[in-house]
Amino acid sequence: MLDLYSVNRLIDLWLEEDIGHGDLTALSMIEADAKATFHMNARQDLSLAGIDVAAACFKRYDPAVKVEVKTQDGTRCKPKTTLLAVSGGARSLLTVERTALNIVQHLSGIATETARWMDAIKGTKAKLIDTRKTTPGLRMLEKHAVTCGGGANHRLGLDGGVMIKDNHIAVAGSIAKAVERARARVPGLIKIEVECDRLEQVRDAIAAKADIIMLDNMPLDEMRESVKLVAGRIPLEASGGVRFDTVRPIAETGVDYVSTSKTIQAAPAVDIGLDDA
Amino acid sequence: MLDLYSVNRLIDLWLEEDIGHGDLTALSMIEADAKATFHMNARQDLSLAGIDVAAACFKRYDPAVKVEVKTQDGTRCKPKTTLLAVSGGARSLLTVERTALNIVQHLSGIATETARWMDAIKGTKAKLIDTRKTTPGLRMLEKHAVTCGGGANHRLGLDGGVMIKDNHIAVAGSIAKAVERARARVPGLIKIEVECDRLEQVRDAIAAKADIIMLDNMPLDEMRESVKLVAGRIPLEASGGVRFDTVRPIAETGVDYVSTSKTIQAAPAVDIGLDDA
Amino acid sequence: MLDLYSVNRLIDLWLEEDIGHGDLTALSMIEADAKATFHMNARQDLSLAGIDVAAACFKRYDPAVKVEVKTQDGTRCKPKTTLLAVSGGARSLLTVERTALNIVQHLSGIATETARWMDAIKGTKAKLIDTRKTTPGLRMLEKHAVTCGGGANHRLGLDGGVMIKDNHIAVAGSIAKAVERARARVPGLIKIEVECDRLEQVRDAIAAKADIIMLDNMPLDEMRESVKLVAGRIPLEASGGVRFDTVRPIAETGVDYVSTSKTIQAAPAVDIGLDDA
Amino acid sequence: MLDLYSVNRLIDLWLEEDIGHGDLTALSMIEADAKATFHMNARQDLSLAGIDVAAACFKRYDPAVKVEVKTQDGTRCKPKTTLLAVSGGARSLLTVERTALNIVQHLSGIATETARWMDAIKGTKAKLIDTRKTTPGLRMLEKHAVTCGGGANHRLGLDGGVMIKDNHIAVAGSIAKAVERARARVPGLIKIEVECDRLEQVRDAIAAKADIIMLDNMPLDEMRESVKLVAGRIPLEASGGVRFDTVRPIAETGVDYVSTSKTIQAAPAVDIGLDDA
Amino acid sequence: MLDLYSVNRLIDLWLEEDIGHGDLTALSMIEADAKATFHMNARQDLSLAGIDVAAACFKRYDPAVKVEVKTQDGTRCKPKTTLLAVSGGARSLLTVERTALNIVQHLSGIATETARWMDAIKGTKAKLIDTRKTTPGLRMLEKHAVTCGGGANHRLGLDGGVMIKDNHIAVAGSIAKAVERARARVPGLIKIEVECDRLEQVRDAIAAKADIIMLDNMPLDEMRESVKLVAGRIPLEASGGVRFDTVRPIAETGVDYVSTSKTIQAAPAVDIGLDDA
Amino acid sequence: MLDLYSVNRLIDLWLEEDIGHGDLTALSMIEADAKATFHMNARQDLSLAGIDVAAACFKRYDPAVKVEVKTQDGTRCKPKTTLLAVSGGARSLLTVERTALNIVQHLSGIATETARWMDAIKGTKAKLIDTRKTTPGLRMLEKHAVTCGGGANHRLGLDGGVMIKDNHIAVAGSIAKAVERARARVPGLIKIEVECDRLEQVRDAIAAKADIIMLDNMPLDEMRESVKLVAGRIPLEASGGVRFDTVRPIAETGVDYVSTSKTIQAAPAVDIGLDDA
Repeated sequence: MLDLYSVNRLIDLWLEEDIGHGDLTALSMIEADAKATFHMNARQDLSLAGIDVAAACFKRYDPAVKVEVKTQDGTRCKPKTTLLAVSGGARSLLTVERTALNIVQHLSGIATETARWMDAIKGTKAKLIDTRKTTPGLRMLEKHAVTCGGGANHRLGLDGGVMIKDNHIAVAGSIAKAVERARARVPGLIKIEVECDRLEQVRDAIAAKADIIMLDNMPLDEMRESVKLVAGRIPLEASGGVRFDTVRPIAETGVDYVSTSKTIQAAPAVDIGLDDA
Repeated sequence: MLDLYSVNRLIDLWLEEDIGHGDLTALSMIEADAKATFHMNARQDLSLAGIDVAAACFKRYDPAVKVEVKTQDGTRCKPKTTLLAVSGGARSLLTVERTALNIVQHLSGIATETARWMDAIKGTKAKLIDTRKTTPGLRMLEKHAVTCGGGANHRLGLDGGVMIKDNHIAVAGSIAKAVERARARVPGLIKIEVECDRLEQVRDAIAAKADIIMLDNMPLDEMRESVKLVAGRIPLEASGGVRFDTVRPIAETGVDYVSTSKTIQAAPAVDIGLDDA
Repeated sequence: MLDLYSVNRLIDLWLEEDIGHGDLTALSMIEADAKATFHMNARQDLSLAGIDVAAACFKRYDPAVKVEVKTQDGTRCKPKTTLLAVSGGARSLLTVERTALNIVQHLSGIATETARWMDAIKGTKAKLIDTRKTTPGLRMLEKHAVTCGGGANHRLGLDGGVMIKDNHIAVAGSIAKAVERARARVPGLIKIEVECDRLEQVRDAIAAKADIIMLDNMPLDEMRESVKLVAGRIPLEASGGVRFDTVRPIAETGVDYVSTSKTIQAAPAVDIGLDDA
Repeated sequence: MLDLYSVNRLIDLWLEEDIGHGDLTALSMIEADAKATFHMNARQDLSLAGIDVAAACFKRYDPAVKVEVKTQDGTRCKPKTTLLAVSGGARSLLTVERTALNIVQHLSGIATETARWMDAIKGTKAKLIDTRKTTPGLRMLEKHAVTCGGGANHRLGLDGGVMIKDNHIAVAGSIAKAVERARARVPGLIKIEVECDRLEQVRDAIAAKADIIMLDNMPLDEMRESVKLVAGRIPLEASGGVRFDTVRPIAETGVDYVSTSKTIQAAPAVDIGLDDA
Repeated sequence: MLDLYSVNRLIDLWLEEDIGHGDLTALSMIEADAKATFHMNARQDLSLAGIDVAAACFKRYDPAVKVEVKTQDGTRCKPKTTLLAVSGGARSLLTVERTALNIVQHLSGIATETARWMDAIKGTKAKLIDTRKTTPGLRMLEKHAVTCGGGANHRLGLDGGVMIKDNHIAVAGSIAKAVERARARVPGLIKIEVECDRLEQVRDAIAAKADIIMLDNMPLDEMRESVKLVAGRIPLEASGGVRFDTVRPIAETGVDYVSTSKTIQAAPAVDIGLDDA
Repeated sequence: MLDLYSVNRLIDLWLEEDIGHGDLTALSMIEADAKATFHMNARQDLSLAGIDVAAACFKRYDPAVKVEVKTQDGTRCKPKTTLLAVSGGARSLLTVERTALNIVQHLSGIATETARWMDAIKGTKAKLIDTRKTTPGLRMLEKHAVTCGGGANHRLGLDGGVMIKDNHIAVAGSIAKAVERARARVPGLIKIEVECDRLEQVRDAIAAKADIIMLDNMPLDEMRESVKLVAGRIPLEASGGVRFDTVRPIAETGVDYVSTSKTIQAAPAVDIGLDDA
């Protein structure tokens, strides 16, 4: 679910920030007509994300470079798996190398961490979703990486849904009035989610016909009670302080979604390298 | 060491990616003339980085917002420390909130991780430095965060030094010829670093008058031997596979720099929130 | 529901296209220090839209210009109503005049046409909504103008909902399978609309729990039958070839939304001028 | 007279505003490797404008798409005329479809309206020209559409001529002094047009050797008198409040140009669709 | 005749290219809160151009800097004349210093060279004009500098007039047909200039009612003959290989314009410095 | 040492500034399907720089144009040498012609002037280097042109080295403290240059282990004395007021670098033209 057209603008920014006034090493040490071929290889167990973006980095800088994607995004890879082959002007390949590796290491780190969480909730009906806590400038790429790891996406941006919180409810007077107000003002295809801290609010949100209900930092028993209350009529999202060691019990309460920022904000980059072919 | 002028172009990109077609929640639920005041507070122990960038996010979106930075970058903070106060149009504040938090959580995560490594090498003469393994689009901000945690910076980009590696040496014929070639072609203010795997190469690099020598994945005893060989004439950088549990013994060999990508690529975001003032 | 922050990038484009190499008339005929004050006035009956955008044009070109909005967007105005007052450097005002007028004439044309359609369906429960048939480059501004005229918005863009059509259904095998497929792949806050040509499809879409059902070019009696079938469980949108003279009978069928591209694509600009104050 | 090179920057803006965070329908409902072929067909009588721009939209988004223009801009088309054939990745075609149609519908609307006016003045020597009252962001495309309908262009922007109005004359002291002032300050290849309300001014403008004289909202008999006065020495432009039902008598007065904003600002989009090939 | 609004986009480019990853000297050697005041002074005789652009550089980088222009563009200055005073953050001033000086040195170099040529043709009726041979990226600024030195401007760009040359005439069949063709296709406010090598062509161009006639590399006696032929009906431009030592005799032939690229392409930068106030 | 990838952004700016609303001559006088072939030829003795940039201008505007570079950058050419051959759409070639010529004339002017200075110091060991006094917007291109003429480059930008001047020394307390301060704050690969007016400062800079020492406006005998003092340990740069007639004696003092802004700021463009093939 990634639109490569939109990524090219980002790639320009990335290349520019690394190249600056010029790649002094490549320009001074490599002959202008030297050719090379490299393989991008996994150096650890990982779930792959962003390999098409890495490929696009090479093509963007030098359209004459040949790039072949060897492994598709979403694949769980063993060390030494070849992910990509590039060949062309040696200067071009070396100038782009670091940028291409940085993005695929970062995104695959997220996919790998997500896959680890997915394993943890295996067998439950809950979907693991992300949040808007992403690295600025990489929103759509990181959300894509989450899906590569088996997770799903929450809102893509502030235009992808209405999120009603305590202060909105206070201003509107009640959950019902808040939902009604949102419904009247936003496009009909936009869903409205209500954030609830306690069961009473869940009841109000059901009555107000919210499209989704978020259970915010709720104890497990109240989550279970909420699941009974909605009885499948409205999807429930468990959110707030979810940790790797608490995600399974939460998922087992019967909620539809468990959301966490950890799979993006706390995912270490994985080890991927560029080797002589 | 951060140039805020250059950051505004990035902020536009970040805001655009979150706002998309518009912040439907703020536009529908908050009155256009509503005012608010928020504090940005630490919610864990952390070293602060990026607070001026967070401030700039609010000002960029809405120049009428008032922002006061309460804690300076580089400060080690306790939970509940107030970092920033913002007041102004409630819609503006809520629309920008997530972007401002995302960047300061990310950068402070790096500063905090760097500070942890700095504590580990305390008392040695080694400087802890970063690499070019950064998140695409955030190079200068992440390098700044490293300095906020007490670390120092390696090359800022491909234009900030020449890095001579095995394949360059092979092409040139010898380390001496490779250094000579680089010296002849790049601006005189640019330093030349030679990557060495073994002591023999270190000797060659010293003879070639390299400006810096990188000891790449070298055993501790060879590092110590290298320190003796250079005898203070040329700075030495230990690099390659440095881990939190190996950084101190490496630093104790007497090298001038220890470089790691971990303080950036494996630093989890820290918890910082926006609360009613 | 308009985010002025995002509009500035457009204003730069607009000014650049009119100014080109420079406003030769202002630069040659007006002294650099001449001051002026103008009023922007309605010259016909109209519903106002875009007055804040017109104001932003002047401020963007010359921050020293003083602009006061006299009439708010959404107001139905009589001829000679003063909409805006600007004062400052005469060169600046004259250079920006045409661009500022062009946008407010265009957007108010849409608001005025929408208001005319709103009058036509007065008293029915149907909401009049727009489509994605907008003028390239002006999407959010034209959607805003529709709300100024009393209408509401359909999808803001391709990321604001899923629209299932015949070819998708053919590929998936059935409406149920198509909805299920979309549900599995898009963020949970995204609604899914199914386009139906005939009653049988409406029944299938109800069974598939579509979030919205579009009745595409359906005869009035089938629309009425569809209203009975859904019985308020799922919103219905009447779409396809709606004309000014057919909108009321369609709205009276009991559908929730009537969508038309005419209020944007066939709305003539209204007459607004800039006069000496 | 359209420079496609300059249009690509606009196409990026258009695609970005429609796609936003991604085309959720295409990405979820269409397989990544699905192929398709579509024809763009006229669905009403129309004069075509912008077909190369529509083609460029597809190529810009996905260079692998094949596009063949079947009918040239400027052609008067019957319903069912095939204008364009596109084939390639189904996702790409569907993602771009709306943007490509929107621009060609809009521009052909202008060409069609212009052609209607051209028919109305057939046989007179007057050229029908446009004004700077265009849709912000589409100046050159709309001016091109006017020529596709048979009309001609007035100034392309503020750098394409000097337009002397009452207030300039007041400041300069006389029409002669105003013309002299402009002549002294602008490049020699720039023409100077003087706006005249009455015959006395026309005489002054002739004496001042204006390059063009605009007859602003003048009665028909004064226009005819002006034609006699200039006796072919200086082109005359009739302007101000020209309507479809008054354009022919105005053109018959013998003026060289009749200018109107209506062919752009009041032209409804025409019906063009994308059909399975 | 300079539009500062359009210059800011250029200033961003200039600052970015000099600053790169950051001004390491200012950031390391100057305290963040240090203040300074500098004067920009002439260090030789010069005609000033671009002082407002230099001022805008400081304001663009740091809006808190105070800038006062002390001498206006177009002034002939003696050494030690103070042109500008700036005060504010010392880091900001030093970071921008070089860019601000570079542009004002370059543009004043052009103004100074133009003034030297103007002195050479003093007393003749000829206007000295420039060409489109300008430094890429600085067109409008260099054309402005020419006017600061007392010269005038030829076409500002390819949209500012039609220039008919030999190959166009060959294609069209004759000068008359070429002019007619251009007249039929370009906006009425655009002038048409015909390039003539010999008297016969001048006669044809007069007959074709060209708006301007360029005498291309013509001997002085043929220029004088051309002046007689046109008898004031059409302006004449002498062009081609004009040198400082030939400009006066050419101007004395009675032509209206003498055009040269030398005042821009061969003008050395002048010496202007930034001194402690 | 030129990165063409980065140049394309500049080419867009250059083409846009010349084309403006469109190339009225090419669009009106040349048929859309006309083809042409041109040669770009030297019209004087020159050292070539920027021929690949000229080639890129044609390709950027119209990818269908065929361009063949006939002479490489850095070549000393005789008049009539063919530098480049282009063939393709005549409109495209003529629209780009001026921009392509302007840049190659400007850059080759710099290369030619640099070559003249290089001849002047032939046989000395000094390298001739440039400064940051470049034309705004053309930094890397002009630095490239200097190398084409045989010269070398000083700092590429403010991020390419630290330059310690009098006021920094005053603030820090001594040259030693200033160097120490810089060393502590900037990346280890960055060199530190100290500007010295007199021998005493040279001694201090040597003691402080500066990476480079600039001799600023020093008399020849003090330069020679400085050469003796450093005894090859630290490179010396002679700078300040170097003229063509003083460069050789300065180079003969034994300094490592002589820097001048004249080869860029005072280099007249050379004559290169586009001729029918």
